[in-house]
Amino acid sequence: MEHTYCVIMAGGKGERFWPLSTDRVPKPFVKLIGDKTMIQMTVERVLRLVPKERVFLVLGREHVEVARAQLTDLPEGQFIAEPAGRDTAPCIGFAATILYRRDPAATMIVLPADQYIPDEDAFVRTASAGVEWAMRGDYLVTIGITPTRPDTGYGYIRAGESMHADGGPCFRVDRFVEKPDEATAFRYLAEGGYYWNSGIFIWRARVVLKGIEAHMPPLWDGLEAIGRAEAAGDAIGVADRFKGLQRISIDYGLMEKADNVLMVKADFAWDDVGSWGALRRVMKLDASGNYLRGNPVCVDTKDCVIFGEGVRVGAVGVSDLIIVASGEGVLVCTLARDQDARRVARMMERGETGA
Amino acid sequence: MEHTYCVIMAGGKGERFWPLSTDRVPKPFVKLIGDKTMIQMTVERVLRLVPKERVFLVLGREHVEVARAQLTDLPEGQFIAEPAGRDTAPCIGFAATILYRRDPAATMIVLPADQYIPDEDAFVRTASAGVEWAMRGDYLVTIGITPTRPDTGYGYIRAGESMHADGGPCFRVDRFVEKPDEATAFRYLAEGGYYWNSGIFIWRARVVLKGIEAHMPPLWDGLEAIGRAEAAGDAIGVADRFKGLQRISIDYGLMEKADNVLMVKADFAWDDVGSWGALRRVMKLDASGNYLRGNPVCVDTKDCVIFGEGVRVGAVGVSDLIIVASGEGVLVCTLARDQDARRVARMMERGETGA
Repeated sequence: MEHTYCVIMAGGKGERFWPLSTDRVPKPFVKLIGDKTMIQMTVERVLRLVPKERVFLVLGREHVEVARAQLTDLPEGQFIAEPAGRDTAPCIGFAATILYRRDPAATMIVLPADQYIPDEDAFVRTASAGVEWAMRGDYLVTIGITPTRPDTGYGYIRAGESMHADGGPCFRVDRFVEKPDEATAFRYLAEGGYYWNSGIFIWRARVVLKGIEAHMPPLWDGLEAIGRAEAAGDAIGVADRFKGLQRISIDYGLMEKADNVLMVKADFAWDDVGSWGALRRVMKLDASGNYLRGNPVCVDTKDCVIFGEGVRVGAVGVSDLIIVASGEGVLVCTLARDQDARRVARMMERGETGA
Repeated sequence: MEHTYCVIMAGGKGERFWPLSTDRVPKPFVKLIGDKTMIQMTVERVLRLVPKERVFLVLGREHVEVARAQLTDLPEGQFIAEPAGRDTAPCIGFAATILYRRDPAATMIVLPADQYIPDEDAFVRTASAGVEWAMRGDYLVTIGITPTRPDTGYGYIRAGESMHADGGPCFRVDRFVEKPDEATAFRYLAEGGYYWNSGIFIWRARVVLKGIEAHMPPLWDGLEAIGRAEAAGDAIGVADRFKGLQRISIDYGLMEKADNVLMVKADFAWDDVGSWGALRRVMKLDASGNYLRGNPVCVDTKDCVIFGEGVRVGAVGVSDLIIVASGEGVLVCTLARDQDARRVARMMERGETGA
């Protein structure tokens, strides 16, 4: 695998996990789980696959400093600063051109910086299988997660025919489906053959660039212009052209359209930890059903998520609540409304108080 | 009323209103209501009755500094530091000896520093009536509040025969009763003739000292010893003897035993604001039933008490909660459990986290 690279995407705003995360320090750089930040855990995981010289980060300029401070082992040149956040297609295209220039035989494992995958061995097995398929042909390989509940927060992949004679983990992809409503999600689970779209992709740099050329000509043209500006040493030109790219996801722009897409079925537990409530799903809870951080004082408190690192937090008689205190502020939100917690951060930004 | 003095008792710990109050800055010194602290409001109220030269404060040594900072108009000699907190009987006895020495004709209005009495005019009327009775004979006058609910958090006074021929506000006191259970409190309301014990007392210094001599000989002896130590300039002797006094309330030690007790029925709204929940009772709430301080961001939040001065607080989907954030920490407590909020402060003091 000496031509295999990992590209970790660490974008995102700080809204979902305010007041622990902020725009300055978004989710990948926060300790939601254990003593390491999400990105530290992600890097640790991929170091099981490739040496540190082949681990690249793509992230906003404004986060390079915090990333370097958290990942002191990674060589400096491997922090790729995006001039602007333009969703995953420009991000991946940009990284692919950089890697292709460096190593035309490069195979990329592209993965988000903030997912929870506790079983590293299983991750290595699945990702290695993906790399194998990506090198075997001109495939765009995606990792599919066997759904454990009718989640409406994820996109789904419908698997097509198996690539194996004997029931192996790789399938052709029948189609990608956007986040379904609850009834549809239930049906997917009942029918079987549907998988969660993990956002982890494996392909040769050459192959993904060919896909972008075929299915996303404006992005292709933009990447070429960026390449020319880079070659000319025109940093402002690079930034301007990047900012001019259309905001679009790789799923929508490429994966849904390409016909060379494969899915490798993951055999690991996976969660994108998209909300405070997700922490109760993935973490070991105490006897009262709480996930507590920072030694809060709890009296008759159950089924809560409480973060109070550096702040003394006391809870009395409450249940099904998210309570998060940091130097930034305090959030109190019902578990049922955890998707709306981000509204608080947005309203604060705009100076609203609401009602 | 040139021999009338106000003695404001500002004792107490900071537990009930943690994290807004602390042992260093207990409830009287906190802005629970409006832009003034409880003690500032209390002083303002009594200045309607007596000039500032006759307003005395009895408080713990450790709170003298914060009290002076909040009450810059009061002459320095009127801050009486108790060497130790020994409940209301020693506090009142100590103040009475000081006032009696200064003015043998002194009449004292003794009142807690942290009660909510919005109608100052009515307070002045009732207190003036009390002063009149205290000067008319050797009476121990107490202020009784007409109960508006079967509260189990207050002591009750059962009024006896009227002192008036024509239905005035002053009664002999039949008996004092400790905090009742709920059924008993309901019965008191149904029967009528029961009043809440406000903890506001009016008497001549000479009369209360005579009462202490008759009904609380150990306290009387202690006060005499303290007087001798003071006369000898022995500050350590004063402190030691004060610390040796028995911890006992004036209600239990004197009022329940004396036969010269009168009650003047108050014609003002009154609340001792004994808990976070009490704030919802006395304050004007917003359209969602919230009492909000410090501009918290609220999404679908109702019937809550939220304090976030100096801390950004966001609330989503919650109801019937107390949320208080300060530089000291964060409390989240159901309204129903507001009496248990103090347990959090105690547990933190002891380094416990609970469950």
